[in-house]
Amino acid sequence: MKKRLFSGIQPSGEVHIGNYLGAIKNWISLLDDYDCIFSIVDYHAITVEYSPGVMQERIINAAATNIAAGLDTDRCIIFVQSQVPEHTELTWVLNTLTPMGILERMTQFKDKAQQNEKNINVGLFDYPVLQTADILLYKGQAVPVGEDQVQHIELSREIARKFNTRYGELFPEPQHILSNAPRIMGLDGKNKMSKSMNNYISLIEKPDAIWKKLSRAVTDENRKRRDDPGNPDICNVYTLHKYFSTDSELDRINKQCRSAEIGCVDCKKILSENMVKELEPIREKSLELINNPVSVMDTLNAGAEKCRKIAKETMSEVRSLMGLR
Amino acid sequence: MKKRLFSGIQPSGEVHIGNYLGAIKNWISLLDDYDCIFSIVDYHAITVEYSPGVMQERIINAAATNIAAGLDTDRCIIFVQSQVPEHTELTWVLNTLTPMGILERMTQFKDKAQQNEKNINVGLFDYPVLQTADILLYKGQAVPVGEDQVQHIELSREIARKFNTRYGELFPEPQHILSNAPRIMGLDGKNKMSKSMNNYISLIEKPDAIWKKLSRAVTDENRKRRDDPGNPDICNVYTLHKYFSTDSELDRINKQCRSAEIGCVDCKKILSENMVKELEPIREKSLELINNPVSVMDTLNAGAEKCRKIAKETMSEVRSLMGLR
Ligand code: SF4
Ligand code: SF4
Repeated sequence: MKKRLFSGIQPSGEVHIGNYLGAIKNWISLLDDYDCIFSIVDYHAITVEYSPGVMQERIINAAATNIAAGLDTDRCIIFVQSQVPEHTELTWVLNTLTPMGILERMTQFKDKAQQNEKNINVGLFDYPVLQTADILLYKGQAVPVGEDQVQHIELSREIARKFNTRYGELFPEPQHILSNAPRIMGLDGKNKMSKSMNNYISLIEKPDAIWKKLSRAVTDENRKRRDDPGNPDICNVYTLHKYFSTDSELDRINKQCRSAEIGCVDCKKILSENMVKELEPIREKSLELINNPVSVMDTLNAGAEKCRKIAKETMSEVRSLMGLR
Repeated sequence: MKKRLFSGIQPSGEVHIGNYLGAIKNWISLLDDYDCIFSIVDYHAITVEYSPGVMQERIINAAATNIAAGLDTDRCIIFVQSQVPEHTELTWVLNTLTPMGILERMTQFKDKAQQNEKNINVGLFDYPVLQTADILLYKGQAVPVGEDQVQHIELSREIARKFNTRYGELFPEPQHILSNAPRIMGLDGKNKMSKSMNNYISLIEKPDAIWKKLSRAVTDENRKRRDDPGNPDICNVYTLHKYFSTDSELDRINKQCRSAEIGCVDCKKILSENMVKELEPIREKSLELINNPVSVMDTLNAGAEKCRKIAKETMSEVRSLMGLR
C-alpha cells in the first residue's frame, strides 16, 4: 500500500510561479508514489485578518490553478479544510497533549507574533496543532515542506508519540519530505517571490503581462549598460531561465551574457517566450475552471466527502481509545 | 421568549451535596424561567489526566444523579459535549479572535498551571475559549456560575463582542447569574467540599454511610467535652443543618448547643436523619438510572440531537458571516 501524503494549500488568491516551481511541481512528482491529500486550509487562513467577501473566490482560484497546474484530481484528493470539521475536533484533543512551552518555542509563531504585535491571537499560537491534526486525521506519513516548516512536522511527530503513549498506538509519526527546489526569488531579485511583496508572476498572467513584468525584473545590477558584461550566477532572471529554458539556451545565454553578446532585453524575451509556452496551457485550464466555479465546487465537495469518511473513522478510533463515545 | 441558559456539568464521577446545594438546587430553581441547556463537559475534562476506562461511567453517573436530583429532562436539555463536535469548531474560530494576553491573565489558568507544573497543556490554556464556544454555540444569554467563574464569563462577553464587531452582529453577550448559595465546606470543616479532598457526602451515599461520615465530621473545635458549650456560628455541621433541617430544629439546636444541653452526637443524628430523608429519593432514582445506563444514554442522545440542530444553525450563520461555506 502506498504511504499517505498530506499537504496544505493556502487560499491566498492567485498562485504564482514561486508556488508552482517551489511546491506544486514537487507535489506532481509525488502523485504516483503516494496516496496524496491536499487541503485548502481556510481554517489556517482565518488566523490573520482577511475580507470574508473574497474568501470563496480565493478558495476557488487556489483550487482551479493547482488543478490546472497538474494536481490531477483523478490521482489525488483536493478538499477545503473547513468542510471537514473533524480537523478542529482532533485539534482540541491534541491541544490537551501539547505542552505550552513547545508552542512558545515555534520559530514561525515568534516571527508572526513580531509582525502582528497588535493581533497575536490564540489561533496563531495554536496553528501548528491544527497542522498536526490535519496530518494525523488522515494518518499522514509524508508531508512535503520547505525548510521553514520542518519544526512543525517535528512537533507533529512529538504529539503523535504523546497520543500513542498515553492512549494507545494509533498514529504513524509523519516524516517531512524536503523539496529540493530552491526558494524562488521575486522579480526584485531580493525577496522570496510572494503576493504581499508584489514581486511575482502569477500562473494566470496574460502573455503581455508576463513580458511587462519580466521587462522590469532586476538582473545583474553591475551590468549597467548594454556593453557591460554580465554575470548569470548572480542574476535572478538567469535562475528563472533554469526552470523554463532548454539546456542549450542556458549554455548560450551563460556565454553570451558574460561576453555582452546578448543584452538583458533579448535575454528576457527568450525567458518570456518560454515561460508563456509552459504557462499558457495552465492559464487556459485555470480560467476555464475559474469560469465554471460550480464544477470546481463539485470536485472539492467530492474530495471533502472522501476525507470526511476517513476523518470520521480516525475520530472514532481516537474516541474509543480515549473513553469518549 | 425565555432567555437561554447554559451550564456545564463536570463528569467527575459521584455528585456530592456540595454540588447539590451549591449548583444543582440553583439550576432547578431556574428551570421554569429559562430555556436551559446543561452539558456534561467531557472535552473540558480531558484537559487533565484521567483514566479512559472510567470516563463513560463518570458521564452516566453525572447524568443520572443530576437528573435524579431534579434536572427534569422534560424541562431542560442534558447532553454530552463531545457528541456535538461544533463546540470545537467554534472554539477554533474564537481562538482566532482571542488575544494571547487575555488568556494568560485568567486566574484559573494561573492556578491550574501552578498545580500542574509538569503538564501545562494548551487545552488548559484554551479552556475558557471552549467554555465561550459552549455558551455562544447556543446563543446562551445566562450562565449560572460561582464567583471563581465570573472572569471567564466576562471573557466570553469580550469574545462575543469581537466576533460581532469583525464579522457582524450574531451573538448576545452572555451574563453570569451568581448563585447566592455559599460554597459548601467539606466534613473537615476547613476545605471546600470536593471529591479530591475526600471530605464529601455523595448524593448516592447509603444512609449508614451518611451517618458514618457525619459522625466523624469536624464540629466547633473548642467544644472538647460533652459539657462544654458550643458555638453553632463556627460549626460546619450547623451550617449543613441550615440546608436540611426545619427552622424550629435550627432554633432549638442553636440554643441547646450554646447551653450544652445537646451533644454533638445527638445533633449530628438529627442532621443525618434529615439528610437521609431528603437524599433518599434522589439516591433511589439515581441508582435506578445508573442501573439502566441505556435509558440514560437515550436521554443524552436525544439531548445531543436537539443541540446539534441548534449548533449546526449557529455554525452555518458563523460560516456565512465569515465567508466560509
Ligand atoms: S543577459 Fe540575462 S543572464 Fe545576463 S544579466 Fe542580463 S538578464 Fe541576467
Ligand atoms: S451541637 Fe451541633 S451545632 Fe453544636 S457544636 Fe456540636 S455539631 Fe455543632
